[in-house]
Amino acid sequence: MKIGIAQINSVVGDFPGNAKRLIAAYRECVDQGAELVITPELSLVGYPPRDLVFKSNFVPKCLQALDYLAGEIREIPLLVGYVDHHHPRQPGKPFRNAAAWLENGAIRHRVWKTLLPTYDVFDERRYFEPAESSEPIEWNGKRIGITICEDIWTEDYLEIPFYDRNPVDELAGKGIDLILNLSASPYHLGKPAQRRSMIGAIARSTKVPVVYCNAIGGHDQLVFDGHSLVIGSNGRTITQFAGFEESCRTIDPFLTTENDDAAEEADASQLYRALVLGLRDYAQKSGFTSACLGLSGGIDSALTAVIAADALGRENIHGLTMPSPYSSRGSVEDSFALAKNLGIRCDEISIRAPFESIKATMHFLFEGKPEDVTEENMQARIRGLLLMALSNKDNHLLLSTGNKSELSVGYCTIYGDMCGGLAVISDLPKTRVYEISRWLNREREIIPWNTIEKAPSAELRLNQKDQDTLPPYDTLDAILELYVEHHLSTDDIISRGFDEPTVRWIQRRVDLNEWKRHQAAPGLRVTTKAFGIGRRMPIVQHFSS
Amino acid sequence: MKIGIAQINSVVGDFPGNAKRLIAAYRECVDQGAELVITPELSLVGYPPRDLVFKSNFVPKCLQALDYLAGEIREIPLLVGYVDHHHPRQPGKPFRNAAAWLENGAIRHRVWKTLLPTYDVFDERRYFEPAESSEPIEWNGKRIGITICEDIWTEDYLEIPFYDRNPVDELAGKGIDLILNLSASPYHLGKPAQRRSMIGAIARSTKVPVVYCNAIGGHDQLVFDGHSLVIGSNGRTITQFAGFEESCRTIDPFLTTENDDAAEEADASQLYRALVLGLRDYAQKSGFTSACLGLSGGIDSALTAVIAADALGRENIHGLTMPSPYSSRGSVEDSFALAKNLGIRCDEISIRAPFESIKATMHFLFEGKPEDVTEENMQARIRGLLLMALSNKDNHLLLSTGNKSELSVGYCTIYGDMCGGLAVISDLPKTRVYEISRWLNREREIIPWNTIEKAPSAELRLNQKDQDTLPPYDTLDAILELYVEHHLSTDDIISRGFDEPTVRWIQRRVDLNEWKRHQAAPGLRVTTKAFGIGRRMPIVQHFSS
Repeated sequence: MKIGIAQINSVVGDFPGNAKRLIAAYRECVDQGAELVITPELSLVGYPPRDLVFKSNFVPKCLQALDYLAGEIREIPLLVGYVDHHHPRQPGKPFRNAAAWLENGAIRHRVWKTLLPTYDVFDERRYFEPAESSEPIEWNGKRIGITICEDIWTEDYLEIPFYDRNPVDELAGKGIDLILNLSASPYHLGKPAQRRSMIGAIARSTKVPVVYCNAIGGHDQLVFDGHSLVIGSNGRTITQFAGFEESCRTIDPFLTTENDDAAEEADASQLYRALVLGLRDYAQKSGFTSACLGLSGGIDSALTAVIAADALGRENIHGLTMPSPYSSRGSVEDSFALAKNLGIRCDEISIRAPFESIKATMHFLFEGKPEDVTEENMQARIRGLLLMALSNKDNHLLLSTGNKSELSVGYCTIYGDMCGGLAVISDLPKTRVYEISRWLNREREIIPWNTIEKAPSAELRLNQKDQDTLPPYDTLDAILELYVEHHLSTDDIISRGFDEPTVRWIQRRVDLNEWKRHQAAPGLRVTTKAFGIGRRMPIVQHFSS
Repeated sequence: MKIGIAQINSVVGDFPGNAKRLIAAYRECVDQGAELVITPELSLVGYPPRDLVFKSNFVPKCLQALDYLAGEIREIPLLVGYVDHHHPRQPGKPFRNAAAWLENGAIRHRVWKTLLPTYDVFDERRYFEPAESSEPIEWNGKRIGITICEDIWTEDYLEIPFYDRNPVDELAGKGIDLILNLSASPYHLGKPAQRRSMIGAIARSTKVPVVYCNAIGGHDQLVFDGHSLVIGSNGRTITQFAGFEESCRTIDPFLTTENDDAAEEADASQLYRALVLGLRDYAQKSGFTSACLGLSGGIDSALTAVIAADALGRENIHGLTMPSPYSSRGSVEDSFALAKNLGIRCDEISIRAPFESIKATMHFLFEGKPEDVTEENMQARIRGLLLMALSNKDNHLLLSTGNKSELSVGYCTIYGDMCGGLAVISDLPKTRVYEISRWLNREREIIPWNTIEKAPSAELRLNQKDQDTLPPYDTLDAILELYVEHHLSTDDIISRGFDEPTVRWIQRRVDLNEWKRHQAAPGLRVTTKAFGIGRRMPIVQHFSS
């Protein structure tokens, strides 16, 4: 049974466009000899549609598009993900996360998702009712178990055993020859390997092959990495699809015996490719063809520029280096060296005159008060203002360049360096920023070595260095991972051998800066716990852990 | 049976402080002769704790505080809301939304919430497992049905019939003499009347009295209004507590026969008091004693200033009026007139010099390009920068002053007039801003009549008026209510008689400006659908409805 697997990039809410993509992918698979074609979860809709589903004509338009799509399908079935109504007169959520089996111009089967993730970035119980039962579908002499994403996430692979149902066991108990899974499983570091291990275990325990079709593409804060899988009934990988790109391939999971247990990609490479895709899709799907950003001479803006040039084309990136009275000449030179290496435009604009003008304007209110963080923030905000002016005038997407370590402890200026439509590396701890930058330079210098090797500085006052304020980045990142990603209390973290005042300082800074992150640009999630939709902290609260 | 009802204001995560508040309220009720004291939902925790519950020591500290509290309680029971663990070895969410019956130094009963709202601003299925059953509690010869908030929200009062269980019916079926409800039911316009009608219907159908204890206080975007209720078994209101303030009273719902079917408060008064409480708590609970804001001479900043002076004290408010080359002298004069009426400080700062300096700085990049929205935004951003400088230097909470109509269609400048820690009136449509302003002036001029009566203008270019760009506000607000609050499609709205190009223009503007609202300051929710945590739209999406 040759199965076409269409790892495609849908656009949220674009029913006509997604239908076109689906038809093209379907035909490509059919040309390859597919007897059945599978696509990702909600492939007709784009995942996640979020509150768009509540719009009065969203599901009606989705169902129209599904009917149109069915009309394009002949004897080779297409499995497509869509949103259906729940029964209007029964209690419960109004919708279903659904898959349709299209065949000979009609919808032959409808399958509902059973396990509805409602944790981290997921809100499915806000919208959907679960399936009441799971039934295998008979087709061409085989019994096929169709599952949607979370339905195959067995409890060993979840942080908490959330569910009292197991659709794979239900299906296996009724007798199946094959499991298909339509997924929109967002990326974080290590997720592709985790899925492979989990799906291998399912194939071994059920003794049937598993065909896993995952979405690719950037949708706001989420990046879907693809890495679709065909796993044989022995639990070994027959094929893993490419990550971070569209791909349509046709494979017989019953006949193919060769195995492709490829080595896992390096972290730096995986993270980098995730960010390039996330930025490219954020820009292109919202109609931007170009981006601008501030180049400080530091490593964060340098890495952001590399990602931007890769995602949108070097000719479409405009950098500004904006020295203040406290900037070193080296920073400006490093910015120009980076721009030269990348082939992007860079202009130098001194902020000295606006800085003086604004200080003079506020003088009658501030007279007699010493300069402090106010004047540091002024500089960052003038830069933000100039970058937004460039963005407005030339219709660039402004990229903000802060990393996760800074954002965690609020070592960043709201309405200053936090300005931007997308915070490209805001889920990368600083230590990962270094790791990826060195990896980028593995063959030739892309990011100037001086940028990588000098002590990091915000250059907002004389001879300022990050480590005047912050703990060393390896310590900071280690503590932040325990506090932010693993929710450990300060006592738990201190008991692991970290310095108590440092831990308590970090905890307090993370908590106090919730208000800044509330107003941050969306960031691309690449770790298990990113700031953004997957972390919902109160701003005003008195819990000190 | 005299029941003490403690309508208190908890602080999220402040276990020691909340325990103290609970003990004080308990003693006040006991002094009034209470035989049993009821407090709001999660009264020990503050509602909603959101992802704080995942911190490794959050629930342990909550349980410690509960034990401490139990130790303070003698023979008169206290009902307190808290977060408990779910069974660690059973599948499901890790926690329970719980109520404890404390008596004689111990926890005598624990009750779980059954209906877990997971829609709009609520995320309870993210955290909690529902109760498996509802059992009446026998006490002093009465059978008491204890419910938590949503448990009494019968389907006639929900937008959608979400649940297939009905705890009130379950309890009534087992025989009860009284229903108690611990609530943290957030305010929106009309909610107090809606609750009264719903609880009256429950009392009539079960033929038992209902004692409803609601939280008060501002928690980030949510304002809890109190308005606790005692309803007799005939369905008539015995007492409705004050709104928007703490109150402890003791009432016998079996004996009291007098009724208090007071007229509903005027919309303007209710909205105004909600915003004063929301702002006061946001500031005080996060440690701010003062606020600053820009005074434009327009009605939005004027209303925000009135609310701020009421919430924090007039001596703690610092206004800046910041004329640009396009500002009228009248605007500055209106700002000073307002400041005089309110008794707040107001300083005038011209932004002409920084504006010229920034235009000169960008000149070499913008040469030959006409002035456009870029230069309008520059002015708004310079004002934002100056206000943030004042906020930084003097430790004021900066208030942003935009209304919901502007925020809906993006008629506001990100990092400009959107700067601020709290967007006080961002859930008030412009027509409501006028309504409340006129209501404030009902006895004497507080907001200058000139501010109310002149044509609104952003004054960012020569002779600019809001209605050059926007439809008349009554039309705009009517369409926005249908589109944003009721999720109607443009076709549905047009079919109600609105002008097609206007409707389509508004739809497009609302959708395109999702990115700005993503970075907006938190706003205080006062309508059924506010921007913020209760409305989760994708930023990048192609659905055109």
